[in-house]
Amino acid sequence: MKNIIIASTSTVHGLGYLEYILEDLKVFFKDVKQLIFVPYARPGGLSHDDYTSHARTAFDKINIEVKGVHEFENPAEAIQQAEGVFVGGGNTFVLTYQLYKNKLIEPLQNVVKNGTPYLGTSAGSNICGLTIKTTNDMPIVYPPSFNALAFVPFNINPHYLDPDPTSKHMGETRETRIKEFHHYNTPPVVGLREGSWLHVQGDSIILKGVLEARIFEYNKAPYEIPSGSELNVLK
Amino acid sequence: MKNIIIASTSTVHGLGYLEYILEDLKVFFKDVKQLIFVPYARPGGLSHDDYTSHARTAFDKINIEVKGVHEFENPAEAIQQAEGVFVGGGNTFVLTYQLYKNKLIEPLQNVVKNGTPYLGTSAGSNICGLTIKTTNDMPIVYPPSFNALAFVPFNINPHYLDPDPTSKHMGETRETRIKEFHHYNTPPVVGLREGSWLHVQGDSIILKGVLEARIFEYNKAPYEIPSGSELNVLK
Repeated sequence: MKNIIIASTSTVHGLGYLEYILEDLKVFFKDVKQLIFVPYARPGGLSHDDYTSHARTAFDKINIEVKGVHEFENPAEAIQQAEGVFVGGGNTFVLTYQLYKNKLIEPLQNVVKNGTPYLGTSAGSNICGLTIKTTNDMPIVYPPSFNALAFVPFNINPHYLDPDPTSKHMGETRETRIKEFHHYNTPPVVGLREGSWLHVQGDSIILKGVLEARIFEYNKAPYEIPSGSELNVLK
Repeated sequence: MKNIIIASTSTVHGLGYLEYILEDLKVFFKDVKQLIFVPYARPGGLSHDDYTSHARTAFDKINIEVKGVHEFENPAEAIQQAEGVFVGGGNTFVLTYQLYKNKLIEPLQNVVKNGTPYLGTSAGSNICGLTIKTTNDMPIVYPPSFNALAFVPFNINPHYLDPDPTSKHMGETRETRIKEFHHYNTPPVVGLREGSWLHVQGDSIILKGVLEARIFEYNKAPYEIPSGSELNVLK
């Protein structure tokens, strides 16, 4: 049975790394002694080692050991044998490029289908959708495809940001960008605000955290759903 | 001799479409009676016809006729015979996809090298750089390459936005994103604020408009340059 947390962000303003969700992660990873961390998205160009240390510091607090997938000679095997997987945030294009390069797409899909708990934050959540076509990131590398892990039958927009009515900037708002997505693609998009996450358990997909999420469906006006909503009807 | 305007935006806050730069365009396009407009970037999913009408309204004021490149059976031929070219803003991925699909990359490079005046705004400016890897847009379609027209030996970041020190949002700032670009790429990036443009004439590249631009070079701290600066030293 699938067991996935798709979190908008690793960090909410004013709190430490993963702090806002740590109690939930303790429950989510209750059977996990060692977590395999995928540091490929490298926020700010952080090294794989440094990023893994960063993740380790957070999971130390709930007594879970963290190993970086880059520490293994065979990353696919490390994923296949993992008790749990955490894919951290950073740049979604870099992450996707590395997942294809290291042939981890299929292994991740297989283990998650078979019940290995998976935590994604930010870029690590983007790739849980059908494609990375609703990422906010800069396309700093060219991945072989925009197709992602497709754990859920829609796209994710993490760090969802409401339009600022006082802004004088003429660049597109997030909502405008997602509407443009729907001129070329039909899947729904879930705009997850910072502090929100989706908990996928088998066929159920529940919105968690205190905030509402914004849903964009093809040919429909966008709408809000409250925390606790079931999203498995979206497709 | 190359003659190019690379503008951050088509529209600055409080003014109409192209209004802030219209007097300069009158001089820039002084020998042009008919302009070929490339509407492929389709902001907000606007149709090619509607977008072309929009551009036409602005150029009517300076007595230049506008024809959409999509109105021609052979777009490459239309570009080859154009007196002047204007590539409008919208989504850079959609624009790039369409330029490759319609085999317009080489024709555009050839005519611009031979002196056909080219105006780009926003997405139409992004593609003047080496690659589209510093676009702000959502990757809503997968283009066959991120390589762009390379009119200048660096990358462009249009709509450059300074970090907001009061923001509680945890998503990356523009500066962070461009720094991440330099973990994987070495070309300089010119951050063009709204209201700024580059005027390329032969080997000269001058920053125009009242604002400073922000320059990001590989392995260097970012820095500001005043309006009037010569940028042909960047590479």
